Amino acid sequence: MATKSLATWALALNFTNIPSPAIDLAIKSVYNWAGCAIGGYSQPAPGIAFQAIQPYIGAQKNATILRTDIAVDLQTAALINGIASHADDYDDTHRDNSIHPSGPILSALLAFAQSRGPVNGHDFITAFVAGVEAECKLGIAVWPEHYNVGWREFFSIYLLSVHIAADSLIDITSTVGSIGAAVAVGKLMKLNVPKMQKAIGLAAVQVTGMHESFGYDAKPFHVGRAAQNGLMAALLSERNFSASMEGLEGEHGWAKVVSTRENLVLELVSLGEVWEITRNTFKPFPCDRVIHAPIDGLIQVRKQALEKGFDINTITNVTARCHPRVLFLTDTPNPETGLQAKFSIYHAAAVALLYGEAGPVQFSDEVAQNATVKALRPKVHVTSDTAVGSYAAFVTATFENGQTIEVHVSNTIGSYKNPLKTKDLQAKFLEQVGREIGPERATKAFNAYANILDSTDVGKIVKSYQ
Amino acid sequence: MATKSLATWALALNFTNIPSPAIDLAIKSVYNWAGCAIGGYSQPAPGIAFQAIQPYIGAQKNATILRTDIAVDLQTAALINGIASHADDYDDTHRDNSIHPSGPILSALLAFAQSRGPVNGHDFITAFVAGVEAECKLGIAVWPEHYNVGWREFFSIYLLSVHIAADSLIDITSTVGSIGAAVAVGKLMKLNVPKMQKAIGLAAVQVTGMHESFGYDAKPFHVGRAAQNGLMAALLSERNFSASMEGLEGEHGWAKVVSTRENLVLELVSLGEVWEITRNTFKPFPCDRVIHAPIDGLIQVRKQALEKGFDINTITNVTARCHPRVLFLTDTPNPETGLQAKFSIYHAAAVALLYGEAGPVQFSDEVAQNATVKALRPKVHVTSDTAVGSYAAFVTATFENGQTIEVHVSNTIGSYKNPLKTKDLQAKFLEQVGREIGPERATKAFNAYANILDSTDVGKIVKSYQ
Repeated sequence: MATKSLATWALALNFTNIPSPAIDLAIKSVYNWAGCAIGGYSQPAPGIAFQAIQPYIGAQKNATILRTDIAVDLQTAALINGIASHADDYDDTHRDNSIHPSGPILSALLAFAQSRGPVNGHDFITAFVAGVEAECKLGIAVWPEHYNVGWREFFSIYLLSVHIAADSLIDITSTVGSIGAAVAVGKLMKLNVPKMQKAIGLAAVQVTGMHESFGYDAKPFHVGRAAQNGLMAALLSERNFSASMEGLEGEHGWAKVVSTRENLVLELVSLGEVWEITRNTFKPFPCDRVIHAPIDGLIQVRKQALEKGFDINTITNVTARCHPRVLFLTDTPNPETGLQAKFSIYHAAAVALLYGEAGPVQFSDEVAQNATVKALRPKVHVTSDTAVGSYAAFVTATFENGQTIEVHVSNTIGSYKNPLKTKDLQAKFLEQVGREIGPERATKAFNAYANILDSTDVGKIVKSYQ
Repeated sequence: MATKSLATWALALNFTNIPSPAIDLAIKSVYNWAGCAIGGYSQPAPGIAFQAIQPYIGAQKNATILRTDIAVDLQTAALINGIASHADDYDDTHRDNSIHPSGPILSALLAFAQSRGPVNGHDFITAFVAGVEAECKLGIAVWPEHYNVGWREFFSIYLLSVHIAADSLIDITSTVGSIGAAVAVGKLMKLNVPKMQKAIGLAAVQVTGMHESFGYDAKPFHVGRAAQNGLMAALLSERNFSASMEGLEGEHGWAKVVSTRENLVLELVSLGEVWEITRNTFKPFPCDRVIHAPIDGLIQVRKQALEKGFDINTITNVTARCHPRVLFLTDTPNPETGLQAKFSIYHAAAVALLYGEAGPVQFSDEVAQNATVKALRPKVHVTSDTAVGSYAAFVTATFENGQTIEVHVSNTIGSYKNPLKTKDLQAKFLEQVGREIGPERATKAFNAYANILDSTDVGKIVKSYQ
């Protein structure tokens, strides 16, 4: 009944039933996503993808590539904006797993709203929240951190593949993202319950994304393709394309393929009680979230060092004691590109110390090749400690003068307990977007997205800051 | 090195290196696929999908939906022809696993040849063979039938998901099909080795298809989407979109996600030695291949019964002792649609006995609802026997007169050891295609596809029989 329950809940959701903290986070998610989709276009991936498919795109051009204002068909917009929004790895992350909730959903939803609108702000946000709740409840349902650790360790040799499949091989953003996008678009389409069930099923069979892509253009492609997959699922189901009505829980269905766990029902009963959107967090640094805590700590180390008059160039040793996922995901000693640097704890530590910041510039190809950065990376030594939370880190830097500065980060900036504030999010938007389209248009754009609830036609927001 | 080895081999493959039995099977695969793509359009799935995306399709319309002659962009053609070619479940199957090799590859390859050609027949067939070899070697590499059964049984409780994932939950046609399509299209594009590696990686992260879709339009959608996924992977890589160079064997890559086995290298060493295309088989009945043997047997039972003057309507009991996959995949006692009937051993047995054939008509919605068929289904009793091969069956029918007729099929018609002959394939093509576009055009079409090697522009074959 999981698929039917989810479909029924999503279709019944009204704007008035969504508590205001959830609305607040939804709006922040929208403008954070739009900022990333505009700023992220400076990465190669979205532009290359657009060039690759440009000769074949649709004739009905009523959706927009956000950065360029180029009009394209909705499938193309979903793909390219999805890629752009994740190209900098600067978007958002659910507190309890590694889902980046907004990219797959909003890339599909805005394209659909532009193409088939008008959709007002309330309906848009309601559909978006329905998609996020679907996506994140499902993500939690199959997320392996909830496993009994003892059992997991005991059978680790035999269970390696099963766990890795759900844990660290499949990119969960895209695995659940296509379903979230289908739910959100399906809600705007006003599908009935059986069609929504089929849309969920059609989205669920399109599993895109593996961790092997991390550090490459292929990673943000996962997000763009998930947006397209969810959109396609909804478009097919709208026309009554037949599919399993139990795509999630079915005997040969999604949950059984992507996980050994089967607590879909357990997670879904909290729909409308526990709002996953309120657990969305926004990235302060454009890189894998697991290394935000050591970056935060080492920026503090640098500050203290400068206050004490120590020369950063005399650092002899750096340590970071972190959650095991840091080494699992980012043990890349010599990243050669900015994209690879986003998945290198060594690079992240070096730039935090050398620049005192870790923004898009610090994860550029140029900085990845910078001689001083390259010289500092091998001095960084990382240890795994299961007692350290994934938002925490213990970092130290030792200097030629024999002094060591130590910092303990218990909740990194950008985490659920230490979130970016509205003014931080605004600054992040204006920096990314202003760099691309100028500060004036960026300010207009921020105001337009931040006031999305006032919009009678969300699809037109894109034109309001041209 | 698996990805690099495969890329290198595929790019180096020349027409002159392909032995003639492989060429022969490749040509048969082409016309069998084209026949299925034209005939399969009578199923609802391809037409619905086309309606659903029609408003959004490409402006550059130089590819064709085979049944309708409608010009569309290459992405749309790949999707719709892919869906159509598998909509009747009448296409082809590799001898050693359940891959339907042609659909994902040819749906992408013909669209590409039409859009970016001219491509002559030799180059087209060479690219197709490269794709099939890639696809099938990979399919065999992760196919679980090769597991050590004892090990599997012992850990079956804990390993259930891993095995099911590779075995009976993921639709392997699409899992490997996108890779085959990327290899074939990438070869026509003349990608260099690194770009071909990346194309393989980009195809590998797009895993479409679960067994939950069987019996629905969603199943042929897997094939169409796999064709699109492979095409997209090649288009992106052509423009130097970055991706892992080790997408297949990488630590967090394809083989680890879809299987516990890691004998990619073992399978790939036989590239160019053992030609998988020569192991392709063509379906005599439009339904899941596992039930072909009992159908074959019960058609023989009917024949014997009629010779003896027994009335088929006096059958009291039917038995089929089969390979365990028959019940695993087709234990559907009361299929309500033609599509569901394709995965019902009970329906298949009933129509074999009542009609003496099991063609597209016998798997229509009308026959699925036929009262006589529905009355006979519950009399069919199936038992699993691991000693019975998947191309074999022991079937019996008992009559009111107390007599029982028994038939043992050791190699069903359409299997590797008892293949459809050229004249059977021609008849299959003419029946399917003639029904749709008339016998005259069907004959022209058959001759055009069967003589593909003589073509200087394969993309134009489609117009030659209009």
